[in-house]
Amino acid sequence: MIRIAVTGASGRMGRTLIEACAHADGVQLTAAIEHPASSMIGADAGELGGIGKNGIPVVASVEDVIEQFDVLIDFTAPVATLANAAACSHAGKQIVIGTTGFNDEQKDVLLANQSVMAMCMASNYSVGVNLCFKLLETASRVLGEDSDIEVYEAHHRHKVDAPSGTALSMGQVVADTLGRDLKECAVYGREGQTGAREKDTIGFATVRAGDIVGDHTVMFAAEGERVEITHKASSRMSFARGAVRAAAWLNEQKPGLYDMQDVLDLK
Amino acid sequence: MIRIAVTGASGRMGRTLIEACAHADGVQLTAAIEHPASSMIGADAGELGGIGKNGIPVVASVEDVIEQFDVLIDFTAPVATLANAAACSHAGKQIVIGTTGFNDEQKDVLLANQSVMAMCMASNYSVGVNLCFKLLETASRVLGEDSDIEVYEAHHRHKVDAPSGTALSMGQVVADTLGRDLKECAVYGREGQTGAREKDTIGFATVRAGDIVGDHTVMFAAEGERVEITHKASSRMSFARGAVRAAAWLNEQKPGLYDMQDVLDLK
Amino acid sequence: MIRIAVTGASGRMGRTLIEACAHADGVQLTAAIEHPASSMIGADAGELGGIGKNGIPVVASVEDVIEQFDVLIDFTAPVATLANAAACSHAGKQIVIGTTGFNDEQKDVLLANQSVMAMCMASNYSVGVNLCFKLLETASRVLGEDSDIEVYEAHHRHKVDAPSGTALSMGQVVADTLGRDLKECAVYGREGQTGAREKDTIGFATVRAGDIVGDHTVMFAAEGERVEITHKASSRMSFARGAVRAAAWLNEQKPGLYDMQDVLDLK
Amino acid sequence: MIRIAVTGASGRMGRTLIEACAHADGVQLTAAIEHPASSMIGADAGELGGIGKNGIPVVASVEDVIEQFDVLIDFTAPVATLANAAACSHAGKQIVIGTTGFNDEQKDVLLANQSVMAMCMASNYSVGVNLCFKLLETASRVLGEDSDIEVYEAHHRHKVDAPSGTALSMGQVVADTLGRDLKECAVYGREGQTGAREKDTIGFATVRAGDIVGDHTVMFAAEGERVEITHKASSRMSFARGAVRAAAWLNEQKPGLYDMQDVLDLK
Repeated sequence: MIRIAVTGASGRMGRTLIEACAHADGVQLTAAIEHPASSMIGADAGELGGIGKNGIPVVASVEDVIEQFDVLIDFTAPVATLANAAACSHAGKQIVIGTTGFNDEQKDVLLANQSVMAMCMASNYSVGVNLCFKLLETASRVLGEDSDIEVYEAHHRHKVDAPSGTALSMGQVVADTLGRDLKECAVYGREGQTGAREKDTIGFATVRAGDIVGDHTVMFAAEGERVEITHKASSRMSFARGAVRAAAWLNEQKPGLYDMQDVLDLK
Repeated sequence: MIRIAVTGASGRMGRTLIEACAHADGVQLTAAIEHPASSMIGADAGELGGIGKNGIPVVASVEDVIEQFDVLIDFTAPVATLANAAACSHAGKQIVIGTTGFNDEQKDVLLANQSVMAMCMASNYSVGVNLCFKLLETASRVLGEDSDIEVYEAHHRHKVDAPSGTALSMGQVVADTLGRDLKECAVYGREGQTGAREKDTIGFATVRAGDIVGDHTVMFAAEGERVEITHKASSRMSFARGAVRAAAWLNEQKPGLYDMQDVLDLK
Repeated sequence: MIRIAVTGASGRMGRTLIEACAHADGVQLTAAIEHPASSMIGADAGELGGIGKNGIPVVASVEDVIEQFDVLIDFTAPVATLANAAACSHAGKQIVIGTTGFNDEQKDVLLANQSVMAMCMASNYSVGVNLCFKLLETASRVLGEDSDIEVYEAHHRHKVDAPSGTALSMGQVVADTLGRDLKECAVYGREGQTGAREKDTIGFATVRAGDIVGDHTVMFAAEGERVEITHKASSRMSFARGAVRAAAWLNEQKPGLYDMQDVLDLK
Repeated sequence: MIRIAVTGASGRMGRTLIEACAHADGVQLTAAIEHPASSMIGADAGELGGIGKNGIPVVASVEDVIEQFDVLIDFTAPVATLANAAACSHAGKQIVIGTTGFNDEQKDVLLANQSVMAMCMASNYSVGVNLCFKLLETASRVLGEDSDIEVYEAHHRHKVDAPSGTALSMGQVVADTLGRDLKECAVYGREGQTGAREKDTIGFATVRAGDIVGDHTVMFAAEGERVEITHKASSRMSFARGAVRAAAWLNEQKPGLYDMQDVLDLK
């Protein structure tokens, strides 16, 4: 049984991680950490995660529980993550990092830990999204030259950018596989007398509506048939489950830097 | 049994109309007409329609068979349609007109026939598309103010304009029902830092790929739920079936000008 | 501003109703009620609803706040609803009832209130689902005789019955419109040498997977085209929003019994 | 330029193959063969394929044109295919075989040619379907143990068996990858009190409606996300294109027996 610690335990991602640990095989939540100033220090982690009391109190520092876990899952902020990674590194623990927004200097310091510690970093911990990247590579290789490729994505009304980062990453995988430059071949909207579709473009169609968590479909359409690869997110549980899966996998690894493609054996 | 005549009998639409007559209840193809210069004059209409010989020879003029039908279905060209409508009008026949591209003068001449003849004109004879217009009106009235509305359409790579005319018509029905000006509220593409969605816009997302005949979906997305109304065309048979349905309905009507909303009792 | 009271205020539906009131125009939550034995008596209703403090304390009885609201929204249990409806009736208030499971005697007592009070009862308060019932009636009338009709539904893995009640209601609307007996024409699965599809059947295809809240699509497929009417639920907010909409509408009505088709002007 | 011959040239598949050759890069139709009794002997193959005259006359025997092609594409019947394969084998040509229904003895005779000739045999030549088989294997490996897997398929009203052979093959790929026995874990319909979904089942949902050529979707649904792999066929052109792609690939190969997974480099 791999022992997991979670930082930011009373935040939305932290609570989802606590719940995800409870539903995963082979792992067990054994420590929960929050910022010392939080009113939740001392609260029961299980109650925070909505899974009923589990007897794990929220503590104020990773060091306080450093002997009680094998892998830390850390979705917090750069400064906190740097300190937590250092603590794990010194104590022979592993770390799964979901924090984003590191500057270059912070990134250098963080990555220096890879010589002594197995660490996983990914911009998106969803197993499904990472799987789709691989499926898109395969599909592009087989069908890409003979088909028209279009990326459709839909998100809730509050999203402020378009297309989504995930849609652009999907387009990038396709473009890389086919040796195209996404900046040159992307089409972000169509209006008026557009003329017939140019063969080597990649189209993006974007919907913004209601409370859609995140839908993505990449279509490969040839004469006589089409193949579609679709991902639909319904909650942040997908990220939490992926992070827990990464933690379980990481526990077996030698020191080094890994990403979700490694975790899922998709390289 | 209502007797149907079809002009342009050896063209793609004419042959589909011949096939549609054979599969519809209550109607019978009894005459088929082509341009006098066609090499198909004298050919068997059933063979042209792919339904086996039916003993109806293709003739060169509506007048030649004017006593042999009740309703003419005419998908040809403006000048031919004007002559055919005049012939029907004089002989007490009805006409279903699928021809487009009349200029104002031609239209005046054509419509003058409505005082003595029941005539049906529609820009799109698909029963499904016309049904969708009605569904969109109902949905807009019930959900429109509380939801975000987006129109998705996909067509084959050869289509030269975007969004499709049908997509724009769908958006127009929504805008009219909600008292919005489509020109002001339509959004045809999204790229970059768009900001949150503005509530009263109508978004259009356009896909061009492969051999897609024509897909349209209008989405009404609110907090907690969405309703989607979708039309998928697979062949021109949908237009032919609608025209035959219009012909059967028209035979019962008084002189006047009708459209598919009348035929389908959707007004 | 219509003043709304919510019973069962600390339950999942109650809290969603509190949130829905905060986001709707023209209404205001002015009272919140829970069972006297609840530990939440005295708590702030806004905090329960996740919308921040609103100064409305949870009280133990409808009578305690009877002068502070215009319409009660009640999703509780039969005995409680009967008492609440009597209180509203005596005080000249209206009631929106989401409670289910009344026996015949309870129903008689409850419905007797309609002579003096406007009351709304529906088995499903989702605006989208009720809209779809109407759309299905229209579509069946126009396309039903000429198309094959199939109902697809998908729900999460925990659902214990199939097809869903909503799917069956959708099938019932179609069958009623077309004069078919759903029991005779429903097909719930296909395996082996089934033979060609029988024209007047209504097929049901059921998916059970993951955490799908509830997807429903009814397809009308003819030669050359298909029309699909789709509802996708993402949370119980759809029910809460519909109930609040019913409350706002009910406040204007004469005494009588109404349902969501009345509220949405779909009869 | 690889030179292609097509047998059964005036049949539906033959004509589609002629058209597919005209649209593919690197190949050229140089011979067309029909049964000696056909009235189409001597007709122009280009006209049969709807691509305009191409000066290739339909001949009555593969031997008559044996020096004029590199690869034969043969979608005919077992006895004819055996003779054609023998002719190709003797002349140092390759063969792509789409014929089905060989008995064991015929199959032995046919396969004996692989020692001297490169030959390709597949039950389904669609590139998209074969790609999907590979995508399903990858998805099952990554997501299979953590998700609920359901196969949805829709076909036209005339189809007499269910689920489709392709849907069953897709389920087989999933089952094989996960070490399950499809016969034991397949669920073909759900009705009544089914109880919660059993984790290791594979569900099949089947739609029969209208003129749907063939839609297939395999869904992997976990908590928080789902991945869907979809194939939509729109015409037999997908099979013809795949066969032509196989022919072009086969021309480079050593003697042996290959299938579409080889052609697409998906093994």
